[in-house]
Amino acid sequence: MTDIEDFTLAAGFRATAVSCGLKANDTLDLALIAAAGPCSAAGVFTTNHVKAAPVLYDQAVLAANPVGIRAVIANAGCANACTGARGMADAREMAALTAAALGCAAAEVLVLSTGVIGRHLDMQKLADGIAAVSSPEAHVGAAYAARAIMTTDTRPKVAGRDLMVDGVPIAVRGFAKGAGMIHPNMATMLAIITTDAVVAPALLQSMLQAATARSFNRISVDGDMSTNDTLLLLASGAAGIEIAEADLPAFQQALNETCVALAKQIVADGEGATRLVEINVRGALDEGQAHLVADSIARSSLVKTAIHGGDPNWGRILAAAGACGALIAPDRLALALGPIAEPLMVVAAGLPTAYDERAAAAMLHADPVAIHLDLGLGDAQATVWTCDLSAEYVAINAHYTT
Amino acid sequence: MTDIEDFTLAAGFRATAVSCGLKANDTLDLALIAAAGPCSAAGVFTTNHVKAAPVLYDQAVLAANPVGIRAVIANAGCANACTGARGMADAREMAALTAAALGCAAAEVLVLSTGVIGRHLDMQKLADGIAAVSSPEAHVGAAYAARAIMTTDTRPKVAGRDLMVDGVPIAVRGFAKGAGMIHPNMATMLAIITTDAVVAPALLQSMLQAATARSFNRISVDGDMSTNDTLLLLASGAAGIEIAEADLPAFQQALNETCVALAKQIVADGEGATRLVEINVRGALDEGQAHLVADSIARSSLVKTAIHGGDPNWGRILAAAGACGALIAPDRLALALGPIAEPLMVVAAGLPTAYDERAAAAMLHADPVAIHLDLGLGDAQATVWTCDLSAEYVAINAHYTT
Repeated sequence: MTDIEDFTLAAGFRATAVSCGLKANDTLDLALIAAAGPCSAAGVFTTNHVKAAPVLYDQAVLAANPVGIRAVIANAGCANACTGARGMADAREMAALTAAALGCAAAEVLVLSTGVIGRHLDMQKLADGIAAVSSPEAHVGAAYAARAIMTTDTRPKVAGRDLMVDGVPIAVRGFAKGAGMIHPNMATMLAIITTDAVVAPALLQSMLQAATARSFNRISVDGDMSTNDTLLLLASGAAGIEIAEADLPAFQQALNETCVALAKQIVADGEGATRLVEINVRGALDEGQAHLVADSIARSSLVKTAIHGGDPNWGRILAAAGACGALIAPDRLALALGPIAEPLMVVAAGLPTAYDERAAAAMLHADPVAIHLDLGLGDAQATVWTCDLSAEYVAINAHYTT
Repeated sequence: MTDIEDFTLAAGFRATAVSCGLKANDTLDLALIAAAGPCSAAGVFTTNHVKAAPVLYDQAVLAANPVGIRAVIANAGCANACTGARGMADAREMAALTAAALGCAAAEVLVLSTGVIGRHLDMQKLADGIAAVSSPEAHVGAAYAARAIMTTDTRPKVAGRDLMVDGVPIAVRGFAKGAGMIHPNMATMLAIITTDAVVAPALLQSMLQAATARSFNRISVDGDMSTNDTLLLLASGAAGIEIAEADLPAFQQALNETCVALAKQIVADGEGATRLVEINVRGALDEGQAHLVADSIARSSLVKTAIHGGDPNWGRILAAAGACGALIAPDRLALALGPIAEPLMVVAAGLPTAYDERAAAAMLHADPVAIHLDLGLGDAQATVWTCDLSAEYVAINAHYTT
């Protein structure tokens, strides 16, 4: 990756950002992604039964108009969730104001919000902000837009993978936010990914769902799932190349890698996190079992605090694996810590090996921390990413609204 | 309750404790519950697929001999979990040593262990300890036994309810441990409950399971489930009164109340906990739905940190309710905080009321904190108990084995 300041979205998209006063201290809090022409679009949304207004709004827009999206307007500081009919009207008004500023139709604009739940948007600030973010005075660049959607994130998150299709370079580029409330499915995160390829909406949607299943749905910070999670994929077609059947695997791989790179940045920047943790479960009967076990380990506060302390308390990992309901055979479990090329075996056939305690502790002080659990039952595997759990997580979350 | 030092088990049981060096600093770490004669017994055990040796051992003993249990030997400092065939042999040896000291058969002795996973028991220390705990030199009393099974607990936990059956007083008395790794089903906890009534084993078992469902299976500290959870119920028959059909409801109620009292003590003493949290979900379609929603709220790190900070971030409670998969209607949700007699309504019909922020914060600083969520769908309800999540939880768990 190039330096974040040089990072650009795919051709055909312009990213801008301003501060409009929704967050304190004049920090950036409003981002606009404007397309040069109508885009194909796909979206994956929170499965929480309490959905924020912008989620409900975008689902309706995408259902009606998946081929003519022109812009995404995104604010931080207020989630516009649990806000009832007024919240829906505010989301609609955000889209209308953006459409008016860009000279397109409201039905061509998607809306994202993130921040505190249960408060109404300050529409006066947003109206002024939308005017500013669509004016020449706005900060220009994806790095600014990535900063503008941050909440408790400590750094912006961008990623991309380019590929060649018929000799033409195609870009897959995006940015994301999300630090707390991260858990499958998707949790509190926003992500916008752009491509300059020509892709039909239905194909875009199926590829986005496939990528999500092995990236954003494989990360966990705290087990909480947000009301606002949204992942958007927009295709401008600016490269003039349509993704044909033969190119699908390469495009899917670029999309997967972009999503995994963003997802890993999200957990690495988890609230209070000091280290990225990668949990590989293999030897499972099927991928679902591998995912269930990996997820249970990733959710365990006891495992995450032990990693934070660099404490090789592997019993907690086995206990978490056993607790998830997967039918595992304790006497077949093998556990290794550290880089896959040279892992340290700490459990074999369900029993501790004569491993060196200091070497094991060192593996847990590494960044990323890698945990390899072999169930000894089959050939399927799954990887889940999480972070350690620190006292800082508690400090961040004990006083968020007040 | 009387003072804990005066607390006694039901007639027919003698509790003793010693320090045998499994825990540091000469703290009590070995407890013996010895019955004057053969007892009916029932047990509820962890559902973790990774079960500790004493769990597997006790399940076999109870299956073979539910009418002639004479003693329970319990150690802290080492869980005897993930210890393979040697662990099973050690559990068997603990029973045999206890049986020899008491002059009964090994098949009449149950074994409990709690502490670090993946290490073998120091059988020499245990042999000396079992000799001591069955000698006149041991500390006598349930309060000592309750202390001897503590791990990260900060205080012993005892509870009991007495009832009258045919004019004869019947006691239901027990003690428990467990502070971390507490989550349905049962989690890291040990509990031994005694009664002097005459009860057949099958009835004892069904009553214990019913009581567990609404007590120990309704608490959560950190979402982790242990390899060692065991709840035992022993009936000495010393009162000479058999529990007949007509007395069942009263006996079940006394047992339920004893279990709930112990369960609440466990979460109130959760690792790093500063306040007990009671989550009442009502207006559900059925008890399962109410339990699912209450449990999701109790598991939410974001809710628990907000409570720790006294931050009335009710959006996190609604988000946790929405995340659990229960089919709830967001616009029917009503949320109140504080004592049930005079709760503060903060959400009605899914939207925030014009509540006073300081009054809401005060409700979250109370102990216990009470949360009342009405789903507005039906008549069923469930209560779950948890605790707040503090930085101290992280500090306790980051360096447990080292």
